[in-house]
Amino acid sequence: MITLYSWATPSGHIVSIMLEEIGTPYDVRTVNISKREQFHPTFLAVSPNAKIPAIIDDGAADGPLAIFESGAILLYLTEKSGRLLPRSGADRAKAFEWLFWATAGLAPTLAEFGHFAIFAKRKTPVAIDRLSAEADRLLRVLDRRLAEAPYLAGEHYSIADIAAYPWAAGAGVLVREHLNAAPRVRDWLEKLSARPAVQRGMAAPLLAARAARAPRSFNNP
Amino acid sequence: MITLYSWATPSGHIVSIMLEEIGTPYDVRTVNISKREQFHPTFLAVSPNAKIPAIIDDGAADGPLAIFESGAILLYLTEKSGRLLPRSGADRAKAFEWLFWATAGLAPTLAEFGHFAIFAKRKTPVAIDRLSAEADRLLRVLDRRLAEAPYLAGEHYSIADIAAYPWAAGAGVLVREHLNAAPRVRDWLEKLSARPAVQRGMAAPLLAARAARAPRSFNNP
Ligand SMILES: N[C@@H](CCC(=O)N[C@@H](CS)C(=O)NCC(=O)O)C(=O)O
Ligand SMILES: N[C@@H](CCC(=O)N[C@@H](CS)C(=O)NCC(=O)O)C(=O)O
Repeated sequence: MITLYSWATPSGHIVSIMLEEIGTPYDVRTVNISKREQFHPTFLAVSPNAKIPAIIDDGAADGPLAIFESGAILLYLTEKSGRLLPRSGADRAKAFEWLFWATAGLAPTLAEFGHFAIFAKRKTPVAIDRLSAEADRLLRVLDRRLAEAPYLAGEHYSIADIAAYPWAAGAGVLVREHLNAAPRVRDWLEKLSARPAVQRGMAAPLLAARAARAPRSFNNP
Repeated sequence: MITLYSWATPSGHIVSIMLEEIGTPYDVRTVNISKREQFHPTFLAVSPNAKIPAIIDDGAADGPLAIFESGAILLYLTEKSGRLLPRSGADRAKAFEWLFWATAGLAPTLAEFGHFAIFAKRKTPVAIDRLSAEADRLLRVLDRRLAEAPYLAGEHYSIADIAAYPWAAGAGVLVREHLNAAPRVRDWLEKLSARPAVQRGMAAPLLAARAARAPRSFNNP
């Protein structure tokens, strides 16, 4: 069994989508980051970087294995399942390329943009303008990639699409005008949104959080 | 032969260190990002995200293959060489974890910190304070990991160390006091700095840039 420590944020959604796509049973424990539960010692033992998502795989070869970082969890689960990553050749390298583009480029840019434009009480126009311009640039880069190929790795849906999807979907809230200038991104978002596993994965953290008396909260197991 | 498009920055150094570690012959083409050469069409054809590093591998199975994103290039080269990534088990998952922690956490934080604290003409204290606190937190997380194990993946040096090294080494310039509070990070930096491949990899972009009349500049091949 896999235990997923998560919250309803794009990084969290990446992992629940992957678990749904490969059809592995999993149990969600919510970590309410707005209540700073990510700094609770029980969670830090799983995710010493104090961020969601993280998993514990009870069925790992060497005994229970904790992993944090959405990108690392995607690679681990793709190897465990043999699914959603081209096995060799140029498509495999392209999957790696867009997986890192999403986790090391798109995600930190949109997360910081969200912080400065939405969450921060004090507005800092210099930071907002810089992050808005970079978000716009990144969505144009994504749009050009999707003009070349139907999915980020090439012909087939892969972990690269899963890593980018929740962030690009969330970008609509922050940068609707940028997204309107990226028609291939909009079509790709729509195509991915129609996948039942994506729908279930996007709903999973919220459903767990809503469960009565949070019986699966990590500090109330 | 591998052609490396790079510049003397931490992301660039990651790839030249890897190429030196696995002993693959490579040719460096400099892309002077302070002269905006990353937006030149010749370079965009290799790296459509307009950032260094990128490689072209002429010896790839399906013909010449261009790859951008330092993390993707590390995974590609570790698979091509069979070197510097544990083959299975918990250590392999830990290598993935710290590879993404470095590329998706440490790198964007320090890059933005460098922008706001050093390069930006107008100083923005809100952004500088936020990034300084996150850099400090990340160095403490790294220090705790290095109290558990000699290398990021566990017992052995891996691509996770290579992804983190140039950023952590550069952190000394930005956050010397944070680094002083992380003695295990300082020891690990010293240990890695003693590796000849690390020394050659750290020097490679600068040596290429200094070469007379920049004969290897990407737009002057
Ligand atoms: N690079 C990490 C990013 C994880 C991340 O930033 N998680 C956020 C939610 S989207 C979080 O836990 N924030 C709480 C905090 O920063 O204290 C990944 O992809 O897993
Ligand atoms: N996630 C990327 C980051 C690459 C990156 O930010 N490169 C910088 C130099 S360290 C760059 O090319 N900057 C030029 C620009 O942003 O226009 C990677 O790890 O390769």
